[in-house]
Amino acid sequence: MNFIKNYECTLCHRLYQPNATVMTCPVCGELGILEINYDYLAMKKVVNRDYFKNNQDYTMWRYTPLMSIEQRPEMALKVGWTPLYQTLNLQKAVGFDLIYVKDEGLNPTGSLKDRASAVGICKALESNASVIACSSTGNAASSLAGNAAKMGMKAVIFVPKRAPKGKLAQLGIYGAEVILVDGDYKDAFALSKEAIAQYGWYNRNAAINPHLIEGKKTVAYEIAEQMDFKPTDWVVVSVGDGCTIGGVYKGFKDLYELGLIDKIPKLLGVQAEGCAPFYEAWIKHRDILETEENTIADSIAVGIPRNPQKAIQAVRQSMGAWITVSDQEILFAMSLLGKTEGIFGEPAGVAGLAGLIKAKQTGLILTHESITVIVTGNGLKDTVNAMKAIKEPIFIKPDLNLLKPLLNELKKEKL
Amino acid sequence: MNFIKNYECTLCHRLYQPNATVMTCPVCGELGILEINYDYLAMKKVVNRDYFKNNQDYTMWRYTPLMSIEQRPEMALKVGWTPLYQTLNLQKAVGFDLIYVKDEGLNPTGSLKDRASAVGICKALESNASVIACSSTGNAASSLAGNAAKMGMKAVIFVPKRAPKGKLAQLGIYGAEVILVDGDYKDAFALSKEAIAQYGWYNRNAAINPHLIEGKKTVAYEIAEQMDFKPTDWVVVSVGDGCTIGGVYKGFKDLYELGLIDKIPKLLGVQAEGCAPFYEAWIKHRDILETEENTIADSIAVGIPRNPQKAIQAVRQSMGAWITVSDQEILFAMSLLGKTEGIFGEPAGVAGLAGLIKAKQTGLILTHESITVIVTGNGLKDTVNAMKAIKEPIFIKPDLNLLKPLLNELKKEKL
Repeated sequence: MNFIKNYECTLCHRLYQPNATVMTCPVCGELGILEINYDYLAMKKVVNRDYFKNNQDYTMWRYTPLMSIEQRPEMALKVGWTPLYQTLNLQKAVGFDLIYVKDEGLNPTGSLKDRASAVGICKALESNASVIACSSTGNAASSLAGNAAKMGMKAVIFVPKRAPKGKLAQLGIYGAEVILVDGDYKDAFALSKEAIAQYGWYNRNAAINPHLIEGKKTVAYEIAEQMDFKPTDWVVVSVGDGCTIGGVYKGFKDLYELGLIDKIPKLLGVQAEGCAPFYEAWIKHRDILETEENTIADSIAVGIPRNPQKAIQAVRQSMGAWITVSDQEILFAMSLLGKTEGIFGEPAGVAGLAGLIKAKQTGLILTHESITVIVTGNGLKDTVNAMKAIKEPIFIKPDLNLLKPLLNELKKEKL
Repeated sequence: MNFIKNYECTLCHRLYQPNATVMTCPVCGELGILEINYDYLAMKKVVNRDYFKNNQDYTMWRYTPLMSIEQRPEMALKVGWTPLYQTLNLQKAVGFDLIYVKDEGLNPTGSLKDRASAVGICKALESNASVIACSSTGNAASSLAGNAAKMGMKAVIFVPKRAPKGKLAQLGIYGAEVILVDGDYKDAFALSKEAIAQYGWYNRNAAINPHLIEGKKTVAYEIAEQMDFKPTDWVVVSVGDGCTIGGVYKGFKDLYELGLIDKIPKLLGVQAEGCAPFYEAWIKHRDILETEENTIADSIAVGIPRNPQKAIQAVRQSMGAWITVSDQEILFAMSLLGKTEGIFGEPAGVAGLAGLIKAKQTGLILTHESITVIVTGNGLKDTVNAMKAIKEPIFIKPDLNLLKPLLNELKKEKL
């Protein structure tokens, strides 16, 4: 059972009865992404402080009654309850009083997207589908493949040809059927859409499927709960198609409606300079336009965001802001996070931190404001780009005499 | 405070008073690896079933009173409390009634070695060292680098030149000083030893330092606790220098001495065919001899195990066995684990599973015996070898008509 009240079209605001097979608004078509509304009054009777205190299930499944699934899956990867660290070294280096980092790279397949994929597969199983499919720049794909393997479902995945090798290896190991499309994310998305319609597969594309955001929102629940329901002033997250920031907002909004938190944090949406359709629309007060996909942060390189409404609303309604960062700033953030906190994020994963550093420089976020940065993916997914962020290791013959002059040099750098 | 009774030389069995700076037996020299003995009677008064029931610290630090450190570190990565899964799909595929998998790849830097490195850094801090150093085939290094960054200590790391790129990227991101030695593991170890002696750095080499095994043993505590203190008949783990299997045995032995478990599981030590000094010594009833390091499983490619006693005793005293697996069998196990359970392990990480499959074939382990397989490291660390375990993805132009014949082919394979 769940506490769904109805589905609401984000464009025309028509309401629909919950129905597992409807994906988008029958009137507005594909652009009419649905929002799932809950009966918070009924939910409140089950979900309160005591519910959390007595719950020993330290995974995202502890939030089952707040989601759109019928029941906790029996066989599932241990998604969620990732570490939230106060960053004593990092906050000092960046110049804020209080920065927390939520390390989503420690999810089972290495990214926040596990939360969405796991819910997608639950819904696919509820609708008796035997195949689930998606198009993805990488993490949606690998999370779908891994979670589908555990839950006994076949995954077909359409990826653009620029997907890093490491991510392809992961898909293959999880036994997914991988279709590498000779084109970019748009082409992969279009082909997946046609194939899903043609073959009747369950659709995991986050842009279309309203349930995936219901998985992603659990990251906000965890941030709040891990801070004893007193979240920070700001939450910072990198943005590609917009579903993740939409989910973060929804999670905090749910908790606010349930009376579990007093305020919704301001959301800072961070995009790569080389692919920033949300930022461009916000700064120029215009609609979202298709842009190029020109950044090393492949997981947020989305030139046509398919689900823009929820992301735009997330920033607007939280009184947040948008910001962009260069690839160089992303690489700097990657190195800084690693050496100060021992956390290795992929480029899109650390873009949020790069945005925070910029927000400090521009005065958008003030020193005394408290911040949570979500690191969305594990750096091991893309070591090719990580190599650009570091200095070359010292390569020597095994001879202590050769080491000495090198160490003398290092000592000057306070070894 | 801790419950250390004394240090005991594993060769001459002389006893020494606990002392943070002594690493090996002063009489036997470097081969006299020390074992740390505890006062179990005193420990029992603190550590019992209730202690675990009331402990909300879901990291390896919940076991602080069972370790050799003075106190829980204030700033530390969230090491441990990794998922333990019952593997419904895998156990069916392999033909056992009950297989659990402990996914150590979900530790903060991606391997079981985080447990050892975290303890090593605690001891380095206790002895007021400012630099900690090690030689490593990879995971000891990356775990040292990541944990040192979080705990504010400088790490110097000697790696052999065959270390995979992904692991080097990780070290650099964590800000470690990396010395890439033009040679194999032996050469890197020798140079690190000289440098540590010369510069007075703290020594994290697992072979020498008796505290590291005290970190590794926590994986056994978790396996037991996550099974309500009824561990399986067998625990399977891949073996390189021997410290990990030594730690696993010590963990179970501690729990047995404390009366928390009724039996110590039999340990199956799995080595790669191309580098199997323990197996060779066991099967031929002779001493350990230096062997070549010829396997894709780089994390267990150790031609001269520096700490053989504890590993040999672990298998002998648990009534266990040794087995070897080929690189092909490792790649098969990697793919099988991924597609049945959604777990992606590196080659050394899945060598344990490969060994279990072989133990089934040879009749060493019987269908009705229960088994826990420890997956020691994350597959994202070595995607180059993972690519060898999978089929090539389908590469097509974005055209549904091109997809159709491919899917018809796949349907024959029961898509």
